[in-house]
Amino acid sequence: MSEQPGRIMSAEIAEQPAVLRRILDQGAPRIRDVAAAIAARHPRFVLLSARGTSDHAALYAKYLLEIRLGLPCGLTSMSTTTAYGAEPDLRDVLLITVSQSGGSPDLVASTGAARKAGAITLAVTNNADSALAAVSEYHIDILAGPEKALPATKTYTASLLSLYLFAEGLRGSDGAAAQGLPQLAEAVLSRQEEIRTLASRYRFAGRMVITSRGYGYPTAKEAALKMMETSYIPALAYSGADLLHGPLAMVDNVSPVIAVVTDGHGGEALQPVLDRLRGRGADLVVIGPKHQVDAASAGFVLPTDGVSEELQPLLEILPLQLLAYEVTIARGQDPDAPRALAKVTETS
Amino acid sequence: MSEQPGRIMSAEIAEQPAVLRRILDQGAPRIRDVAAAIAARHPRFVLLSARGTSDHAALYAKYLLEIRLGLPCGLTSMSTTTAYGAEPDLRDVLLITVSQSGGSPDLVASTGAARKAGAITLAVTNNADSALAAVSEYHIDILAGPEKALPATKTYTASLLSLYLFAEGLRGSDGAAAQGLPQLAEAVLSRQEEIRTLASRYRFAGRMVITSRGYGYPTAKEAALKMMETSYIPALAYSGADLLHGPLAMVDNVSPVIAVVTDGHGGEALQPVLDRLRGRGADLVVIGPKHQVDAASAGFVLPTDGVSEELQPLLEILPLQLLAYEVTIARGQDPDAPRALAKVTETS
Repeated sequence: MSEQPGRIMSAEIAEQPAVLRRILDQGAPRIRDVAAAIAARHPRFVLLSARGTSDHAALYAKYLLEIRLGLPCGLTSMSTTTAYGAEPDLRDVLLITVSQSGGSPDLVASTGAARKAGAITLAVTNNADSALAAVSEYHIDILAGPEKALPATKTYTASLLSLYLFAEGLRGSDGAAAQGLPQLAEAVLSRQEEIRTLASRYRFAGRMVITSRGYGYPTAKEAALKMMETSYIPALAYSGADLLHGPLAMVDNVSPVIAVVTDGHGGEALQPVLDRLRGRGADLVVIGPKHQVDAASAGFVLPTDGVSEELQPLLEILPLQLLAYEVTIARGQDPDAPRALAKVTETS
Repeated sequence: MSEQPGRIMSAEIAEQPAVLRRILDQGAPRIRDVAAAIAARHPRFVLLSARGTSDHAALYAKYLLEIRLGLPCGLTSMSTTTAYGAEPDLRDVLLITVSQSGGSPDLVASTGAARKAGAITLAVTNNADSALAAVSEYHIDILAGPEKALPATKTYTASLLSLYLFAEGLRGSDGAAAQGLPQLAEAVLSRQEEIRTLASRYRFAGRMVITSRGYGYPTAKEAALKMMETSYIPALAYSGADLLHGPLAMVDNVSPVIAVVTDGHGGEALQPVLDRLRGRGADLVVIGPKHQVDAASAGFVLPTDGVSEELQPLLEILPLQLLAYEVTIARGQDPDAPRALAKVTETS
């Protein structure tokens, strides 16, 4: 255990406004260039490849590319290439591989194989010198700086913003709508005291369910992973629609629910699920706009006025990172050093 | 609660060998015709759309189509169409929508929209008169007969076999390798007593982790859903690779692990994860070939000799359906009627 438990994770969470600013100031022009070069090659399908936290960033990109660019997307099942030697025809396919370290051997191998199979390959990593960057035709550096805590935080939001700017670049936009994010992120992170109060609610929780729909769904998955890898509380993430398909049976007054409610179409589509949860007497904590928090058991109000729906995931995850941190501290564990984890995961 | 708890689920589990035989005898010619018609249109990319149990059948099809046909695949994020009105370019895309009822409004709407956007649409349902069958260009009837228990069992294996025969048909094969399945399924289901012994292990479990890789991964996801919707035990499904990326921190001597080990590439790729779990002293129950069960804390030996890896998922799920049933009975609950669930889920 480090001298002050969670010191590294806490510092990296706090760095996020500065990282977002760095991407907007220094990274954006390069991202625009990469996007323009790829747009000129007219990909017709997109595959996204990643694991863990990066997989949630990839899922965010899937929503962006499908909704804003009309590009059909899929998340890869990596073992089809690495374990089964599948040789798909990848002409007209853009493969985006997201990995903070750029070092996982299975990602490097499957990306290399895809490039040989005709895919346009783009690596999104936090390490320009990585094997993944080398094996890919294009590379975007997320500029998050070294990440030392085992639970990824700043590389997640840095990946989201980089992928947002890339998707905007593909459609010829400069992504100026993101300019306000660093300041908003700072405002959210300054409210850690509110999160500490929320955390006491979960100190003794045996499990939790996190739900969302649309753009907020990757946030729900990432929040669940963060909670599990720091506090070890089993946290189950479901899209609101999937929750009604079975796992809802599991929700009762001892299974607290956190709902990530984006202000927009995703939140509207989640409304029937929220009503159903309230009808079951579930303990419902909302991360979202004020009127949704007011209607819940408790929550954290996000500044959503003037923030387009597709940018809200960059803010939504922040209170949930803090929550994972605070719950873990409250349980007497060290968020910096979850047992059994390595920073570069060597699967093949 | 029904007079005899779990009577309906139990009967439907037992029906599976007969359902598989019916598909092979009566369904296969029609499936081959549909596959031939679609193959003639040379789809280049496949999207799969489904929810809940059917989503796991769709994931199985994704592995088949990627590995055996080299077709890049993606699972749809339905809300991009239904909530956000995305209008993707779906020329050269085959959209396979899997739904036992064929009645979920969001699936009907998104499939209809995809057909308008140029996709070749195929519905795989248990109801030839459903709205989904009507809105799709092609339809495969999985011939499982009415399913009355809320937890889907026979429609899952019926979907797997139908999708297997479809994928084989796409590559011009008659799928004869599946002929032995009904008899093997019968042999597996006759060993319910062994499962009852395993079930006692989980009666008081507060959570569990289910893991696999490759073809067995959909089995892990379906087993977790089955366990949750019947017993309400939070069961977390991870691919072995993802497990090492964070959730492993959650595994200890009070979080039992079930590993679905296919005899083949998937099982080999899972080996390092099994070693790691054993190294952590995890309680590891294996569903798989004998030598893997022998090396674990306990398990259920599957007949895998002469069963090709891609067909093993049809057998793997059977002991896990029985396990969900037996654990639920042991906990004094009724597997037929999980609280809060409806058979046709009406999300939009």
